[in-house]
Amino acid sequence: MDDEVPHSKSAAGALDPSDWDAFERAAHEVLSGALAKLRGAADGPVWQAPPDSLLAGLNQPLPEVGAGMDAIAEQLAAVLPYGVGNTHPRFFGWVHGAGAPGNLLADIIATAINANCGGRDHAAIHVERQVIAWCREMFSFPESASGLLVSGTSMATIIAAKVARDAVLGFASRADGVPEAGLVGYVSSEAHSCLDRAFDMLGLGTNALRKIKVGPDFQMNLKALAHQIREDREAGFTPFFLAGTAGTVNTAAIDDLNGLADIAHAENLWFHVDGAFGASAILSEAIRPRLIGLDRADSLAFDFHKWMHVNYDAGCVLIRDGNLHRRTFARRPDYLASGGEALAGGEPWPVDFGPELSRGNRALKVWAHLLEHGTTAIGEAITANCEQAAYLGRHLESHPLMELLAPVSMNICCFRWNDADRSEGELDVLNQSIVTQLQSSGIAAPSTTRIHGRLAIRVNITNHRTRMSDMDLLVQAVEAAADMLK
Amino acid sequence: MDDEVPHSKSAAGALDPSDWDAFERAAHEVLSGALAKLRGAADGPVWQAPPDSLLAGLNQPLPEVGAGMDAIAEQLAAVLPYGVGNTHPRFFGWVHGAGAPGNLLADIIATAINANCGGRDHAAIHVERQVIAWCREMFSFPESASGLLVSGTSMATIIAAKVARDAVLGFASRADGVPEAGLVGYVSSEAHSCLDRAFDMLGLGTNALRKIKVGPDFQMNLKALAHQIREDREAGFTPFFLAGTAGTVNTAAIDDLNGLADIAHAENLWFHVDGAFGASAILSEAIRPRLIGLDRADSLAFDFHKWMHVNYDAGCVLIRDGNLHRRTFARRPDYLASGGEALAGGEPWPVDFGPELSRGNRALKVWAHLLEHGTTAIGEAITANCEQAAYLGRHLESHPLMELLAPVSMNICCFRWNDADRSEGELDVLNQSIVTQLQSSGIAAPSTTRIHGRLAIRVNITNHRTRMSDMDLLVQAVEAAADMLK
Repeated sequence: MDDEVPHSKSAAGALDPSDWDAFERAAHEVLSGALAKLRGAADGPVWQAPPDSLLAGLNQPLPEVGAGMDAIAEQLAAVLPYGVGNTHPRFFGWVHGAGAPGNLLADIIATAINANCGGRDHAAIHVERQVIAWCREMFSFPESASGLLVSGTSMATIIAAKVARDAVLGFASRADGVPEAGLVGYVSSEAHSCLDRAFDMLGLGTNALRKIKVGPDFQMNLKALAHQIREDREAGFTPFFLAGTAGTVNTAAIDDLNGLADIAHAENLWFHVDGAFGASAILSEAIRPRLIGLDRADSLAFDFHKWMHVNYDAGCVLIRDGNLHRRTFARRPDYLASGGEALAGGEPWPVDFGPELSRGNRALKVWAHLLEHGTTAIGEAITANCEQAAYLGRHLESHPLMELLAPVSMNICCFRWNDADRSEGELDVLNQSIVTQLQSSGIAAPSTTRIHGRLAIRVNITNHRTRMSDMDLLVQAVEAAADMLK
Repeated sequence: MDDEVPHSKSAAGALDPSDWDAFERAAHEVLSGALAKLRGAADGPVWQAPPDSLLAGLNQPLPEVGAGMDAIAEQLAAVLPYGVGNTHPRFFGWVHGAGAPGNLLADIIATAINANCGGRDHAAIHVERQVIAWCREMFSFPESASGLLVSGTSMATIIAAKVARDAVLGFASRADGVPEAGLVGYVSSEAHSCLDRAFDMLGLGTNALRKIKVGPDFQMNLKALAHQIREDREAGFTPFFLAGTAGTVNTAAIDDLNGLADIAHAENLWFHVDGAFGASAILSEAIRPRLIGLDRADSLAFDFHKWMHVNYDAGCVLIRDGNLHRRTFARRPDYLASGGEALAGGEPWPVDFGPELSRGNRALKVWAHLLEHGTTAIGEAITANCEQAAYLGRHLESHPLMELLAPVSMNICCFRWNDADRSEGELDVLNQSIVTQLQSSGIAAPSTTRIHGRLAIRVNITNHRTRMSDMDLLVQAVEAAADMLK
């Protein structure tokens, strides 16, 4: 044996700071910069393009010799202003939450712990279990339900669809593969593309996911659904999966979840709900009644990082039958033996409920966020966003040069500038230009989509920093942009 | 329009702090606690079970009313000591990296930016592109190769196997589903379970992944592989996928990657390399020659959070043919239209290369870590771990009461206590108890596995804080535990 001394308090690893005091000062300085950014979330442009100088600075060969801590702190500060813009009160694009500063505290602790949350017995595993228990409570799922924190609804949907797939095929299919059994599922034509993605990933193919037409409110047409199921059965297919959407991405429509649950029950289908952002509205007194039937879902996919404002990324899947969930994913080799003691204890492990063995510590920030704010405050912020969208919708309806392209459901408003004397093609070009102009100027960041084939300015409000007055600013900015582009 | 005033500098969102100054003080205090934890990484027990008081404190109903910031800061501090232990120099369990304090700077900035990195034009997208360019350089992949940062090798493997699956079936299979075409793949019997998981997820079934026997060095037997491929072809199966392992989880064995690449080429198979931790050894002068052939892979899955010590989670998939990669995942609906301008620009988007649309900002910490330390320092830390494992192996070989159960390859040493007069069953129980005792006492945290059916104490050193003297401490601790358990 050699004669080196054991670690002392001053022992440093090869990748630890050589000067801890200097490192601590740098860390506090970086934190101050981050805090200033958070405090000024409402200031400056919503978005600005990363400048060429920044991009040129990135472009360098793989570094052999380290640049050291100070250089890094400086380069990180240079990146700070060039985010997506979702922290700003007039970010209305896509469906991004605004985040909340308290997450910074949880993230600092999570980074210091640096845990792999795939398994083993440590605090984060217990915290995640508590978060899942809260989710059961939030959505009135039974005690037997299981869940997992994931990157977002895309992953949650893949997990839910796999449980459904394996449950209908039998768990031997995990070894045998998917037979050409003609499994088919159903969503509305307005459903999010992550459902297609899940069918693609799982080997079922996107054609096996039937797109059912929607009514004028963009809800799935239940008669068309029943008809398609009957037709599929007659053609020898095996219907197994039905997904309702609580908040479509285009117009925030909520399917008739209770009606879908009835059909799923009668037809013996797995009933999934895509609640990516809309499920969060269960916390809003005003919206909750429209989510009746959600509590009957076999599985639910939703995000904490959207309308609940936990920082990216934090999604969740809930499965009503925890036993099916575990049988879909559990299988441990010797080096991950189950039933262990000490550090190898803490059963069941998250890896038994999803495809990932390496998993960061999402639980801490979700847990701290819910504890800090409570569900009432989060729900009130959701209600406020719906009121803002309704206000904007009313204003646009009465505007002589604007056209509302879909009913305002919850928090999304799709509209366009519509001069009398333009073709549809010209209108598409003009409205795309208006959105580009708004984003580039930094005054507001809506996104675009198409409603009945028409290019729409899409304003999505999942933002606790947005105020009613921002709606007025947005309308003025659209008017100014249209005027400029004439 | 109403008469509210627009946002001023003092405007706060509903979930923003009511008192920013107090929040800033709390954040700096939390940071100080995190820094103290990092600075004392070598102090105290490697691991300690989360106490009952902590668990009892977690157990409360979903909070309706928020507890506020101060309560959260306090509760987060209470969680801090109860991690997995991988930040400690004598954590030898599983394959967890030790992390590096510099990651804290990047994580603070990432949290303040709060970006969804699924797409759009913002700094993090460009940073990730640069990280992928560095990965190409690191592993001698061509310019045409693509890549994606993911949670870890489990996800990276699913993505790689899906590209392989869709490439052999044709991309129409994304719509049509996987036919019962009898696709089969090959790995060694020592390969990680994430490969089985990928075949399960993708609908191919784990039986379709043939487990080829290994030789005495735990490398895949190439003759057995050739034989199995021939047999499969004769039986009408379609071989399409061959995965070599660079660093098996049990013994750190490295398959003959060049030999596998030859067979893959001759048999027209997709050649994947699972380099979860071992691929990082490309940065070690001492180990690099053993990874010849890795540069011929069609796909590579590896983790930054293991032997490169980026904080959790940070894995990566590289695909030699970026075009195939994109065709496997790309498909954008109207609300994510491609070819956009301003904020909707920045093509291609990460969502075109993987299943996740919501994605946190992993790129920033990987980029900052590589910049801060450079590849040479990281490689030297890897070499040091291999020297420590070799030293431990030599010591155990000459120890009268210990038995080395596998050759030491790179950084893993599998051994057991072996009194002369015990049955195999008794030895298994004793060695399991030794590991439990070491973990519970907090002096060291190895894990267990089975080698040729025997329970092994498994010491994995992916830890830049470990010193040679920790090997001596470990041996003494095993002796003491065995003595106590006699």
